[in-house]
Amino acid sequence: MAIDIGGTKIAGALVHPDGTMTAATRRPTPRGTDAEAVMAAVTEVIADLSGSPLWSSAVRCGIGSAGPVDTSRGTVSPVNIGAWREFPVQARVAAELAARGTELPTVLAGDGVAMTAAEHWLGAAQGHANALCMVVSTGVGGGLILNNQLHPGPTGNAGHIGHISVAFDGERCACGGHGCVESIASGTAIARWALAQGWSPGEDATAAGVAAAADAGDPVARAAFDRAGRALAAAIAATATLVETDIAVIGGGVAASGDTLFAPIRSHLAAYATLSFVKELRVVPAALGTDAGLIGAAAAATMLLPA
Amino acid sequence: MAIDIGGTKIAGALVHPDGTMTAATRRPTPRGTDAEAVMAAVTEVIADLSGSPLWSSAVRCGIGSAGPVDTSRGTVSPVNIGAWREFPVQARVAAELAARGTELPTVLAGDGVAMTAAEHWLGAAQGHANALCMVVSTGVGGGLILNNQLHPGPTGNAGHIGHISVAFDGERCACGGHGCVESIASGTAIARWALAQGWSPGEDATAAGVAAAADAGDPVARAAFDRAGRALAAAIAATATLVETDIAVIGGGVAASGDTLFAPIRSHLAAYATLSFVKELRVVPAALGTDAGLIGAAAAATMLLPA
Repeated sequence: MAIDIGGTKIAGALVHPDGTMTAATRRPTPRGTDAEAVMAAVTEVIADLSGSPLWSSAVRCGIGSAGPVDTSRGTVSPVNIGAWREFPVQARVAAELAARGTELPTVLAGDGVAMTAAEHWLGAAQGHANALCMVVSTGVGGGLILNNQLHPGPTGNAGHIGHISVAFDGERCACGGHGCVESIASGTAIARWALAQGWSPGEDATAAGVAAAADAGDPVARAAFDRAGRALAAAIAATATLVETDIAVIGGGVAASGDTLFAPIRSHLAAYATLSFVKELRVVPAALGTDAGLIGAAAAATMLLPA
Repeated sequence: MAIDIGGTKIAGALVHPDGTMTAATRRPTPRGTDAEAVMAAVTEVIADLSGSPLWSSAVRCGIGSAGPVDTSRGTVSPVNIGAWREFPVQARVAAELAARGTELPTVLAGDGVAMTAAEHWLGAAQGHANALCMVVSTGVGGGLILNNQLHPGPTGNAGHIGHISVAFDGERCACGGHGCVESIASGTAIARWALAQGWSPGEDATAAGVAAAADAGDPVARAAFDRAGRALAAAIAATATLVETDIAVIGGGVAASGDTLFAPIRSHLAAYATLSFVKELRVVPAALGTDAGLIGAAAAATMLLPA
């Protein structure tokens, strides 16, 4: 049983051992400041799932959530769900299951960690014992597979590659840090930098607009993606140098621009991945799409709660 | 049984379960291009150890070596031992043991990984399930403890923090990378930067001389340590943000300058360790001294070859 909690929607499904899904359902994430209203949407998703004839065969429950999360306490404080601050979602979901006579071992994972579990199970990181998986979108997130196991860390936040510094003398990031990857390579940052450098957007002033302009040959737009690609290459190489990952899998909206992002990352990688043991490091697109959140919640539960 | 192979000396000892050592011995590392001459020094160390009355009670053999290493093949190519390139030290040591009628499970570890095992066993990282241990000396190296286990990575090179980039636009490092921590924060880099900024050395133009000048109030020398401290803070925070380490232990010659190095690292740490789960990150001096290599070789064998 998988639940995926994001700022836009709360989704649920029963995920089979082969990764296919049954009884998929969703609710819009309620706006506003009422924590119980958001929980009510989660409860409706659980109620939908409990109507499935396969409900009684569920063996684990995985909850993926926008972060920050604190898996040591089972709480979440999603940036995009203001009503939830240190909300005990894991205990509340377990209580909803118990109220339906269903006691399942339950795991909470941040969305970067869940996406990583999904890509390792069924996607582009399959067969890699040590992998970095990332989302490059309005923000930059990620997760790690080490020794064939998910590495969420004690609080479930490991793999937060968007907030490592690749420019210790760099500009201040929204997080308070300096030179964070996210402040250089997120979609938001790419569009902001292009505009500041004189790029003239048409109707689309987002990173997708910058990507379209880059593909049409606009030099400022190309420079914006080149700079983002260099920062991502440095961060991907740093991760491999620290923990010996041999692949970086990148999903998310900005990665959907394809070679516009991947070509600069790959061309700059050799300038940062220099030591013998990281020379084979590869960077590839994520293989799973919009279902990665639910598949990942199920995969995280399987990896963190072995049978 | 522990062997520690470095550019200056090859040391050996029998290490007891409490970390004390018996039968400690050493040979100078032979200079020159003869791989067998270096191996002969290792063989003499083993011969010395085999004369101990405790020889027959040895249960494991740990070999720590200057890197790069490749533990997947049991070979080493130490930068400071030119005669050894992809030298199969693990198989050769095992053969020497077998020739004496002793068959011991044998582990090879890089010196950064061995130092990390030592500090986790008996030093400043004791009790920390997730720790970064580093050496800041003429170079910058390190190793990782994750989930209470040594994380050497598939080739034994994980924890190579000296060659992650904290300045993706930065100057070229000797490794071919750009903005590597080692190129900013090693003793060599500190002295080079201070000299380039106009520092006038007395008799000692090394990082120790820069440290003495900084302690005496020289502004350029202080700036050199401040810059190194900022780069180290960024790298330590990046590691914690990626894998949820909660302590960084620093040893090596430059760390011996004490607060001259630790004060700038600590003062800058909050500018990089910004997310909730890394706010408790601490930076402390290593607790073990010159014996860390031998203790670490034994500790690595124990951690990687459980009874």
